[in-house]
Amino acid sequence: MTGPRKARRATVHDVAAAAGVSRGTVNRVLNGGYVSSDARTAIEAAIAQVGYVPNRAASQLARQRSQAVGFLALEPHSLLLEDPNIGAIMLGANAVLSLADHQMVSLVIDSDRDMQRVGRYLSGGFVDGAIIVSARSHDPITRLIAEIRLPATFVGHPPDLDRSIPFVGIDNTGSARAVTQRLLDTGRKRIGMIAAALDRDSGADRLTGFKQAMGDRFDPQLVADVPLYDYTYGVKGMRALLDREPLLDGVFAASDAVAAGALEALREAGRRVPEDVGLVGFDDSSWAQRTQPALSTVHQPAREIGRHAAESVLRQIAGHPVEPSVLLDSPVVWRQSA
Amino acid sequence: MTGPRKARRATVHDVAAAAGVSRGTVNRVLNGGYVSSDARTAIEAAIAQVGYVPNRAASQLARQRSQAVGFLALEPHSLLLEDPNIGAIMLGANAVLSLADHQMVSLVIDSDRDMQRVGRYLSGGFVDGAIIVSARSHDPITRLIAEIRLPATFVGHPPDLDRSIPFVGIDNTGSARAVTQRLLDTGRKRIGMIAAALDRDSGADRLTGFKQAMGDRFDPQLVADVPLYDYTYGVKGMRALLDREPLLDGVFAASDAVAAGALEALREAGRRVPEDVGLVGFDDSSWAQRTQPALSTVHQPAREIGRHAAESVLRQIAGHPVEPSVLLDSPVVWRQSA
Repeated sequence: MTGPRKARRATVHDVAAAAGVSRGTVNRVLNGGYVSSDARTAIEAAIAQVGYVPNRAASQLARQRSQAVGFLALEPHSLLLEDPNIGAIMLGANAVLSLADHQMVSLVIDSDRDMQRVGRYLSGGFVDGAIIVSARSHDPITRLIAEIRLPATFVGHPPDLDRSIPFVGIDNTGSARAVTQRLLDTGRKRIGMIAAALDRDSGADRLTGFKQAMGDRFDPQLVADVPLYDYTYGVKGMRALLDREPLLDGVFAASDAVAAGALEALREAGRRVPEDVGLVGFDDSSWAQRTQPALSTVHQPAREIGRHAAESVLRQIAGHPVEPSVLLDSPVVWRQSA
Repeated sequence: MTGPRKARRATVHDVAAAAGVSRGTVNRVLNGGYVSSDARTAIEAAIAQVGYVPNRAASQLARQRSQAVGFLALEPHSLLLEDPNIGAIMLGANAVLSLADHQMVSLVIDSDRDMQRVGRYLSGGFVDGAIIVSARSHDPITRLIAEIRLPATFVGHPPDLDRSIPFVGIDNTGSARAVTQRLLDTGRKRIGMIAAALDRDSGADRLTGFKQAMGDRFDPQLVADVPLYDYTYGVKGMRALLDREPLLDGVFAASDAVAAGALEALREAGRRVPEDVGLVGFDDSSWAQRTQPALSTVHQPAREIGRHAAESVLRQIAGHPVEPSVLLDSPVVWRQSA
């Protein structure tokens, strides 16, 4: 992990050699773990003999452990300003890490400069592992984490993710299929979708699920494609769909924020929800219960996603095997909008 | 700053003593700053002589610099899940820190266990300074930061804050007064307030501003007091006010989220906004432009608050004096709800 040593500071290796024990045994003593009293006596003598500095910071450097785990938000504008789930994911992850006495440190990547500096931070031993939200396969951080083999778990997965990096998420495709199917089952004939964030796995998978449910009835003209999961884009996407198909009677919006914007555009156009148009969202975020009418949507178990991601990283740090992918349940929730 | 040293690892002090220069001169060499070539030669010889380890991590330990600044959210549930400004404050702070090559690390404090671990993290040299959002004077972290003299700046200020810790914020009292005055100027007679978070400076100051504007017309019966800046509490607070005073024709809600909830309760009760009741909020958050009608409110310059807080911390880290308090402009924005 480290480059050639330039100087004479005593290391855990020196202590282990002088005491005639393994490096792991020395680390257990330094970290307060159990060892035999003979081994402990030998190690304490060796520490004094070689001049090893057994303070917390130095021992962390020596064993390359920081007791910290990074939480990386790769799309800060949409995540921190718009995403209703990021806070709950962070709190879920923090709860698990805290119980394991690990400090969660959230790192924002908002520029190339940030990307490079965070890359150095991750490589520099300041964290033992990382949880990465909203990664895309071409992100330099994704490549870096694979290269330096940092214990890491993704929330969601880039479509062509290095399979060695585990992820936690939901079945976006299946849930999108289920919520669209319900629009069909309730008799809607001309159903469109406001697709968002197609460069992310979640956005692409939700469109795939919509296509699967629509089958032969899928009409590419009835897909409006917007860049972000955002209220304002929901307004724009809905206006575009209504221009293309005035007889539209069902809409799947790729997120609740998008659905809230769509609701506004439908209201502008004098279309009643659910009487004239059935509308469904995705996320079960705070938006869903605050629109009029409340949104039928897909429930995202955000806190559980955070917990599972943290557990996965901790297991990797401890050298234990982990599930390559964990998909949590994301059931459809029926309210008034469809 | 550090306790008695137990062992023999060479320090910057040893290098300075061997080279016959000050510790500051040694630090300048280690950090790539300017020193005379004679001093540089002497210091490089001394480094070799005493066996000082001039790698990045060790030099950071020695000079107690991490090039990292903590961003502490002290009320994660209400901040991360409800507060519309926290993301913009983080991005503003990160932009300034990034340009100065400092890593911003956000730390969540969600339990006593978190509080203790974060306290150790702050004391342990992992950050050079901290930005603290939503502190209260009795928070152990507030006391700790004062004790260890960590360069720190608060966003907002606890009422009885140690005056040695600078803060950045807005004039909550003056802005609350201004927004209430406008309700009076537009002819509202029976004006109530949904006050929130009175244990925070912002909540207490907004109530003070309301009282000041109302003067003799202030009626304590027309203040509903709720614990958090939250939509659901806005619904409850509004219902309580309508029970007490059916003739209410003006409401100041302590935040836009609270105002959005109040709007829902007014709609339930068959009261039109602004025709029957004028309603104003506070924050100019994403809520304000998404309610029907859009909210008249007070604009919080969240990104600028983050920038100023980061600049203040960087100046303290560099040993420069800072303004003990910075109040940014927070103008009233008039839309349709009053």
